[in-house]
Amino acid sequence: MTQTQSVMDAALYRARQHRDEDVADLIEELRIPSISTLVERRPDIQRNAHWLQHYFERLGLAAEVIDAGPDGRPVVVAESKGPSTLPHLTIYGHYDVQPPDPIDLWETPPFVPAVRDGAIYARGAADSKGNHMAAIKAVEHLLASGGLPLNVRFIIEGEEEITGQALPEFVRSHAEHLTTDAVLLWDGGFDEFGIPTIATALRGLLYVELHATGADIDLHSGTFGGVAPNPINTLARVLGELKDRNGRVTIPGFYDDVKSPSPEELEAWRAEDERYGEEMKRLAQARALEGEPDFNFHERTWSRPTLDVNGMLGGFVGEGQKTVIPSKAFAKVSMRLVPDQDWKKILESLESYAQTLSTPGVDISVKLLSPAPPVTAGADGPAADALRAAFKQTFGKETALIRVGGSIPAAADFQEALGVPIIISGIDTPDTLIHSPNEHFSIQQYHRGIEALIRYLCLYAASAHK
Amino acid sequence: MTQTQSVMDAALYRARQHRDEDVADLIEELRIPSISTLVERRPDIQRNAHWLQHYFERLGLAAEVIDAGPDGRPVVVAESKGPSTLPHLTIYGHYDVQPPDPIDLWETPPFVPAVRDGAIYARGAADSKGNHMAAIKAVEHLLASGGLPLNVRFIIEGEEEITGQALPEFVRSHAEHLTTDAVLLWDGGFDEFGIPTIATALRGLLYVELHATGADIDLHSGTFGGVAPNPINTLARVLGELKDRNGRVTIPGFYDDVKSPSPEELEAWRAEDERYGEEMKRLAQARALEGEPDFNFHERTWSRPTLDVNGMLGGFVGEGQKTVIPSKAFAKVSMRLVPDQDWKKILESLESYAQTLSTPGVDISVKLLSPAPPVTAGADGPAADALRAAFKQTFGKETALIRVGGSIPAAADFQEALGVPIIISGIDTPDTLIHSPNEHFSIQQYHRGIEALIRYLCLYAASAHK
Repeated sequence: MTQTQSVMDAALYRARQHRDEDVADLIEELRIPSISTLVERRPDIQRNAHWLQHYFERLGLAAEVIDAGPDGRPVVVAESKGPSTLPHLTIYGHYDVQPPDPIDLWETPPFVPAVRDGAIYARGAADSKGNHMAAIKAVEHLLASGGLPLNVRFIIEGEEEITGQALPEFVRSHAEHLTTDAVLLWDGGFDEFGIPTIATALRGLLYVELHATGADIDLHSGTFGGVAPNPINTLARVLGELKDRNGRVTIPGFYDDVKSPSPEELEAWRAEDERYGEEMKRLAQARALEGEPDFNFHERTWSRPTLDVNGMLGGFVGEGQKTVIPSKAFAKVSMRLVPDQDWKKILESLESYAQTLSTPGVDISVKLLSPAPPVTAGADGPAADALRAAFKQTFGKETALIRVGGSIPAAADFQEALGVPIIISGIDTPDTLIHSPNEHFSIQQYHRGIEALIRYLCLYAASAHK
Repeated sequence: MTQTQSVMDAALYRARQHRDEDVADLIEELRIPSISTLVERRPDIQRNAHWLQHYFERLGLAAEVIDAGPDGRPVVVAESKGPSTLPHLTIYGHYDVQPPDPIDLWETPPFVPAVRDGAIYARGAADSKGNHMAAIKAVEHLLASGGLPLNVRFIIEGEEEITGQALPEFVRSHAEHLTTDAVLLWDGGFDEFGIPTIATALRGLLYVELHATGADIDLHSGTFGGVAPNPINTLARVLGELKDRNGRVTIPGFYDDVKSPSPEELEAWRAEDERYGEEMKRLAQARALEGEPDFNFHERTWSRPTLDVNGMLGGFVGEGQKTVIPSKAFAKVSMRLVPDQDWKKILESLESYAQTLSTPGVDISVKLLSPAPPVTAGADGPAADALRAAFKQTFGKETALIRVGGSIPAAADFQEALGVPIIISGIDTPDTLIHSPNEHFSIQQYHRGIEALIRYLCLYAASAHK
């Protein structure tokens, strides 16, 4: 313990001496446009994976880029080489990022990181390169200050933003070689009030495309307007009816398996609901919030499922006018799922429901892009306790137990394959504009995150030692 | 009369001797991508206007390109120079064309005209360069065969497909210099059964954009799904509710001023409605037709107003998935109007109705692109009678009196400014895929159209002579 304490102090001291370098290394990774959803960015995905591998190797970790075949994006795995008697922690992150569009709203280019007002502006700065670089840096400072007090394995994937199959396939097929005492899912963040959090539940995701097809050819609305099936009108009507103006999803059976939050959760949420709603409205930069009137804002974002159209395209969308009745239109639709909803049941219901909402001249097909089941996680045990203590020492604040509206598909994969405690946390903050133009990450938060992780690794090592 | 007869015979003979040349000249005009709705095609619009001007000048007509300012596309006016005692006919056409997208469905490039199976494949072949070149060619053959038996003025505009202001401004401000005995609106065609037509009514057009704005920034559906206003969901709901699944438009007051067709029209339509419906379905290449169940197919396309979404775009529409709640979405919506609907009244009603259909977090604004009022035209008098006779002599068929589902905005402009008979006709046929990929025009129909117009000009000249 004394030795761990002195290593920790030395590492914290070293971190403070190397702040410029720590920022420079994060910026270097942020220069790589590792957009997983764009096929043309495949070379950048490869580049980012190898950049991480070489970084880990420079630290002395055994690192590997796990090939995911011609359609996949590789997982990077790195392992420290300490004695096997030490406790073992697996740290999860992802190196892929969202597309930067609409590109013209960025004040500086998304992949030319710019420092201003104490923050780094770049796509991926907060989601999630800032997160995993803070963890890597914590390990780096410990290694340079006397050594790691535990064994660490990094698993950093490249398909988080597209819910790909490379990570689940790797984790499930290599489960026996991935023994560990706990998994830290380091892709989360602080809450709206600057409080560190550990998540007890994550919403899942069911992402589909709806394709509407009318006539075999585009038609002129002068000649055919009044009799021609119009796939945009019909698709709009279907989408409009999938969720009513009160935010209630109308897919039959959609709410059947939704589990209510515990009375304790509800009480805690109710207590600060007004403040939370105001904060969400401010962060969203919206003139009004929407949603189910019978549920408070926490429930709407944490424990209630949703449906959003994420994209839609059909017909002529250039400047000016074209009197066309197009033959096709499509929409991207995603549903956030909560425990214990079953995406297979909902997909099936949606498929037959969409048919009943269509009209005879328009065919609607539903294409599954990817599912991620909802997850329930715990927040007790040594791995969670050590993180709460590290947060308290670094930020002077108690950790809030929250739910997360977003999905971390990896959570379900680790939980099912490894059967060890999963701790869901991170140092992102809600004002960082992830997935939006001008995503940024506070440099101070980054440095304090590194310090928190140095403390965490040491505190967890000490407490897990028998 | 004998002289006119011999000129006509000589011109008809000459037309048959010059068929290859007549096709070659049409093909030359079809090479110009004169797409009026695309700003980047402005130089091609100018090129086409000057191509026409030079063509007219080669025939010995006085031709002018009327500048329409920096935002307009010019009108081409050409005038024969015969004695002012001759009758005077104005022939209207348009040289602008629709965009060719979706471009990948064309078997040959839209602006590289290809001849196959007896037809010319190119954007604009049928709508409407084939039409006006047939009229120009008729004048050319008459001039080369003894001279025109009447005075002819061509007015060929470049904004028909976008309902621009250049033609109405020109016609209304130059009305006193545009005296004429009749206007031939030569942008129409034959009916589904190969019968030449004269139109007694045209539908008007009200073309608008609906812009939906939610939050000021794009949002992540994990964090904000359940409370964030989603402009795509809301816009889809609004569009879905504007027209119900039975084809009925729900805008308050929309049908108030709709005039019923005459009992004679209704009887004629009812007699062939089943055949017409089958034919429309075949031409549309649709699995089923839509529309108001209480009205027959002729009514739905000719005497009933409609509403179609012509384009819609919002959010992420690339490959893959992005869990974005976008801040904006828009749709292009057009309404076909019938006598005596008033587009101003309907626009106003739509504007306030859209507000009631929206939700507090989403702002919907309606932007007027262009209006064209519905038109009622006559089909009697010497100018119409001569056309029916010319069609009978050329095609061996009586002319059908029809309505036209599409709009010819110029009809209202000429009617209001000049106060002379307007004859709406043409040689396009319904299977030519206007506004769609693989638009084409029958070469035989083109040659017979030229012959019909030679006869028409001579017959009208003879009958209009006092």
